Formats: sequence, C-alpha cells, structure tokens
Amino acid sequence: MKRIAILGSTGSIGTQTLDVISHHPELFTVEGLAGGQNLSLLAEQVIRFQPKKVSVATKTLAEELKQLVPAGTEVFYGAEGLQEIAAGTDADFVVTAVVGSQGLRPTLAAIEAGKDIGLANKETLVSAGHIVTESIRRHGVKLLPIDSEHSAIFQCLNGESIEDVHKITLTASGGSFRDRSRAELRDVTVEQALQHPNWSMGAKITIDSATMVNKGLEVIEAHWLFGLPYAQIDVIIHPESIIHSYVEFRDHSIIAQLGNPDMRVPIQYALTYPQRLPTPTRSLSLAQVAQLHFREMDFERFPCLQLAYDSGKAGGTATTVFNAANETAVQRFLNGEIRFLQIEDIIKEVLERHAVASNPDIEQITEADAWARHVAGSIN
Amino acid sequence: MKRIAILGSTGSIGTQTLDVISHHPELFTVEGLAGGQNLSLLAEQVIRFQPKKVSVATKTLAEELKQLVPAGTEVFYGAEGLQEIAAGTDADFVVTAVVGSQGLRPTLAAIEAGKDIGLANKETLVSAGHIVTESIRRHGVKLLPIDSEHSAIFQCLNGESIEDVHKITLTASGGSFRDRSRAELRDVTVEQALQHPNWSMGAKITIDSATMVNKGLEVIEAHWLFGLPYAQIDVIIHPESIIHSYVEFRDHSIIAQLGNPDMRVPIQYALTYPQRLPTPTRSLSLAQVAQLHFREMDFERFPCLQLAYDSGKAGGTATTVFNAANETAVQRFLNGEIRFLQIEDIIKEVLERHAVASNPDIEQITEADAWARHVAGSIN
Repeated sequence: MKRIAILGSTGSIGTQTLDVISHHPELFTVEGLAGGQNLSLLAEQVIRFQPKKVSVATKTLAEELKQLVPAGTEVFYGAEGLQEIAAGTDADFVVTAVVGSQGLRPTLAAIEAGKDIGLANKETLVSAGHIVTESIRRHGVKLLPIDSEHSAIFQCLNGESIEDVHKITLTASGGSFRDRSRAELRDVTVEQALQHPNWSMGAKITIDSATMVNKGLEVIEAHWLFGLPYAQIDVIIHPESIIHSYVEFRDHSIIAQLGNPDMRVPIQYALTYPQRLPTPTRSLSLAQVAQLHFREMDFERFPCLQLAYDSGKAGGTATTVFNAANETAVQRFLNGEIRFLQIEDIIKEVLERHAVASNPDIEQITEADAWARHVAGSIN
Repeated sequence: MKRIAILGSTGSIGTQTLDVISHHPELFTVEGLAGGQNLSLLAEQVIRFQPKKVSVATKTLAEELKQLVPAGTEVFYGAEGLQEIAAGTDADFVVTAVVGSQGLRPTLAAIEAGKDIGLANKETLVSAGHIVTESIRRHGVKLLPIDSEHSAIFQCLNGESIEDVHKITLTASGGSFRDRSRAELRDVTVEQALQHPNWSMGAKITIDSATMVNKGLEVIEAHWLFGLPYAQIDVIIHPESIIHSYVEFRDHSIIAQLGNPDMRVPIQYALTYPQRLPTPTRSLSLAQVAQLHFREMDFERFPCLQLAYDSGKAGGTATTVFNAANETAVQRFLNGEIRFLQIEDIIKEVLERHAVASNPDIEQITEADAWARHVAGSIN
C-alpha cells in the first residue's frame, strides 16, 4: 500500500490523481488532501477517499468543511494547513499539484519529512531548483515528474545512464497561435488565445502555451530534474503532441515516449514507478494518427522561449523573475489591460531591470518574485 | 576488454561490426573471424584486427589464405571452421552474421561454450527458436538482437518489465512495391524489385522486404527473442523507417526507438549493452525529416506476412518450411524462372503440403528445410 497526500486535490491534476487512485484501490490509500476554494468537491473527495487530514484555503471555509466531512477528519487551512498535508501525515508519497509559488514551501517540507514527491507544480523547480534538488539528495527521496513532457523524458531514461545522453528534446504543440505570424498576433483577443489545439487546460497555461513561456518553464524544470545543461535541452514544434518528448543518446539512438493526451498516464507512472499498470486511457493507434509533423523551433517567432533559456543560463533569481513577470503579464492580458505581444515585452523589460542574485535562499526568491510582480504590474 | 568473434565477417553486418570495433580499439579485441569466399577482404581484416583464428569456406581457399595472413594465425575452413570460430576461441561475445541455415549449429555451439550472442542471423530463431532460447536459459548467456527492429524493441524494453508489455509493433517500410496494387505486381521485373526505398541491402532481403516475408521472419524472431505470443506482436507500415519499432505498455504509454538507418547503431548497442558510446552515425533531426507517415498493415496486399503469422502460430517445423520455401522461391524469381507473385503462391502451397512436426530436433528441422526446398523448387 502506497500512502498518498495530494496538495491541490480539487484542481485538474489533483482530481486526475484521485481518478488514478480509484482505479487501483488495492494499491493506494489517501492520507491527506489539500484543496482551495471548491468546498463541495473537496468534501466529496474526503467522503470517498477518507483521508485523516484535509486542508482548505481559509479559516471560514475550514469551519464549513467540518460540517461536511466524517467526524474524526482533522481539518486545517491556509499555508499552515498545506504544510500539514505535505509533511504531517503518514503519506510516503506527496503529489504537489497546487498552482503557483505557494507550492514551494510545502514541497520542501515534504522532502524534509522523507516523502517521495510527484511534482506537477512548475514554480518549485523554476524558482528554487538548486534548493529542491539539493534537499532531494540530502534526504534520499525520489522526485518524480508529473507532466507530459518530463514524464516522457523520465520514461525514456529508464534503464539508461544520464552520462550517455547527447540531448533531450521537449516537443511543443505550438499553442493556439502556432500558424500566425507575429504581425497577425498584434491584435489577437483573449478568446482567440484560449483555444488550445490539443489539450484542454486552464486559461493561464493556455496563454503560456501560445507564448511558449510554458515550454520555457519546462526547459528550466528539465534542467533541474535531469541535471542537464541548457545546451543539452532542445525544443521542437510537433503540432500533434503525440510524441511527448524524446532523448537522443550519444550513440545517436533516440528513445521517444508517445501516447494520447491523458495526464492520468504520467500521474500513474509517477505513482507506480518503476512498475506499469493498466490505465483507462485509450490505446494510441499510429495508423489512425497517420501523420506526425515536426519543425524547428523559431526563437524569433517565440521570443519568450529565448528569454526562458537566457534566464535559465543566468540562473539565481532570474528564473523566478521570468516566471513572476510572466504570471503578472498574463493576468493583465486576461484582464484586458495589455495586448498579447506586450506579455513578452514586459517579461523582457523586467528581466533587463533585474539584478540577478546567485544561489538565492527562499527569502531572496520570495523578494525577487514580489519585486518582479510589482514591476511587471507597472509597465505600460 | 570484450573479446569478439564474428561469423560472417566479410558480409554487410560483419564489416560494419568491425567498423564499430575499429572506433573503440580500447574496448574490443577480435579473437576469431569466419568469412566466406571473399579472400582478399578477409585477409585484410585478419591483418588489421589480428584474430588468433580465422575460417573460410573451403580447403582450397584456406590454403590460399595461409599465404596472406600473419604466421601463427590458425586457419580453418567449412562448417567445422565456422564451429571453431564460434566455440573454439577465447571470445566472450560471438556475432552471428552468416546468412541462412548454416548459422544455427555454430550459434548453438557458441551458446554451449558460454558465449554471449549478437544475433544477426534470422534462421537461427526462425527454425530453432525453441532450442536456442532453451539453450540460452540453460547456459545463462545473453542473446542480443542485431537488427534494426529487434534492437529497437530491445532498447525500448530497457529498464522495463516484459509483464508490463501490452504489445510490440514492428515498423515496415513497405518495400520497393509499397505503392503498387496487387494487379500492378503481376509483371514486375527483378530490377524493379531490387529498388528498396530506404536501405541498401542484398538482393534476397530486398525481395523479402517487397513481399513482406522479411517482416514475417522478424515477427517470428520477435516471438522468440521477447517471449511474446503472436497476438502481442503487430506490424505497421511506416514508409520513412525512422521509428524502427516500438513497445506499448499496459498503461498505454508507448516507447519508441528512432534514428537514421545505420546498422552500426544496433551492432554497437549489442556490443556495449547496457552502456551507450558515441557512434560515427549522423544525428537524426526530426525537424529535417518534417513528416512521419503510418498506415495499417494490409494482410491481403501482403499475404506472405499472414503466412508468417500462421506458420508461427502453427509452430514446430512450420516456420522452417516457411523460410525454406521462401528462399527457394526468391532464388527462382531472381533466376527469372517464376513471376513475383508466384513467390507467395509457392510458400502457401509448400506450407499446405507440410505435415508439421512439433518440438522438432535439429535433424527434423534440417529434414523439413530440405523437403521444403525440394518442393518449392518443383512447383510450377
């Protein structure tokens, strides 16, 4: 029995993790769940999976939740509640699926408590990759990626030696504006930006997919997850998103991971690694797909990806600033305050104004994050 | 230092194996070489790689060879010579790259002498898979595939468990007549048949590629190499031959192996497994390839593949008969005695006339082989 705690259980990855767990009740128990605002869903999850501890966003919500869940369920709230679900349960595996920078501290707490991590929170490695990977090493726990691309790379590296890697390549669908020129991007609307060709996702990540910021964050994550320099991490445009990513070894043999888009596959792989078990996902027929297309990444068309590489190579607080500036800019675009192409202008300007601190601690990271959001919010 | 012996050193796989070895002189020594008729090439190889033992097709050639190689080199010939190179040297790894049924006995002798095998000879597993795999188990040696498709599957299975496999899929380019209908095949010439789209190969294997017999033999080999039932072995048409083959696991995650066509990659992988080392092959750029195509295998268009599955499922001597009937029919086609579509008619008829012996010993296999050749030679 693997004992699981989930940070962000009512979100997309959280609910799909519980779906995976529900298909293998003989293998998993749920020790803790942390949700946000969606009280009725969280209560439903608690009743079904019977965790000993549950956490919610605020004190008021916690009081309400207590009325909805079985007596004896301990109810927590806020940042401390998240910490409790991360590190204060009997779980041996913690899925970090909360969105944004709130994921970092509880993930570190879980690592320090000796728990293996299934990581679906980008900011954890983007902001504090050096701290997290060092802590992983020190506590001898496993860090397993839960997203399509990094899980693909992780699966391709199974049984292989990282020294034998020539380079890894992350595939990018190209997002909702893949086939538009930069001139055509000038006046795109929020509604247009939210049409992603292959995956149904939240608004923020759909925009990040269109700007290629999402792929940039994945490049930075890959750098930390696999311990590879940026020169060994490539991105290619692959509109069908069937090949999720691939590894080229130094004998020039390429191992790729393919499948239909279904997050339950990488989630389950993280939970059952190194074993594989049946999933309810559809089998992929390449004959039915019939064609796969590929083209070189165009860094002039997608300057945000170049900015991601640049901030990754700069290191220190630069990647935190890249991420925070983007979050603010995307929010401003979604609010109708700025145009689509201003997202990249804002990230660029904030990065230019930033004095990078190397090897920052959590406080410095938090400061850089706040500073970048402030500056990104004030640029016009 | 890995000590290597090569059966068939002057053929395509043999020369490429020596090319791989020449790139890593610090890793390999050559203990024995067995060639056929190409005396000057064999002598050159002996002078360059200095094996202690060498073998050639006939006594006359052996006498000639003695004059060309360094004093002290032991020279053998014929079937006994092949046996000596397979089992009578200090090699710990034997590459079986001779063509046809002559590969079986020396391969078994090498296994019995405790040597690991790099297998590039199809007939060994097609005719005597049950004997070879049993001997491999008994002597605790490794059997490593040296061809593009099986090496691909073997690489995809690295670090995985065979129980987790849903199915494996071998890719087939479709051969030189991929885009012709059956009606258009009626009058094709030998010259037309010898134009293979992706690989430059010998005449026999190019015809086998056009009839899909080659893929059929690979399916039978895969059955023995990976211990999978035929229901778990698929074939798909993939004209570009970039994906060399792939494995679908029971979580419906697919792992595929890709690369430019260069046999030195699978050869080297067999020699250095589980490590990978640089090869002189070109790196594959999917962006340059731009498109990959796939379509369902058409068993009516390629009835020889169906015959291969049928004989595989029948087991016993049926696969030997399938292979022998095909060899004779292809030779007759190349001689201009029969038309292209008669190859399949002949294989079908010989299989229909054959009374399958289950679990045959080597004598029964040899008899079935001779019988099938005789019958295939007499059908008009």
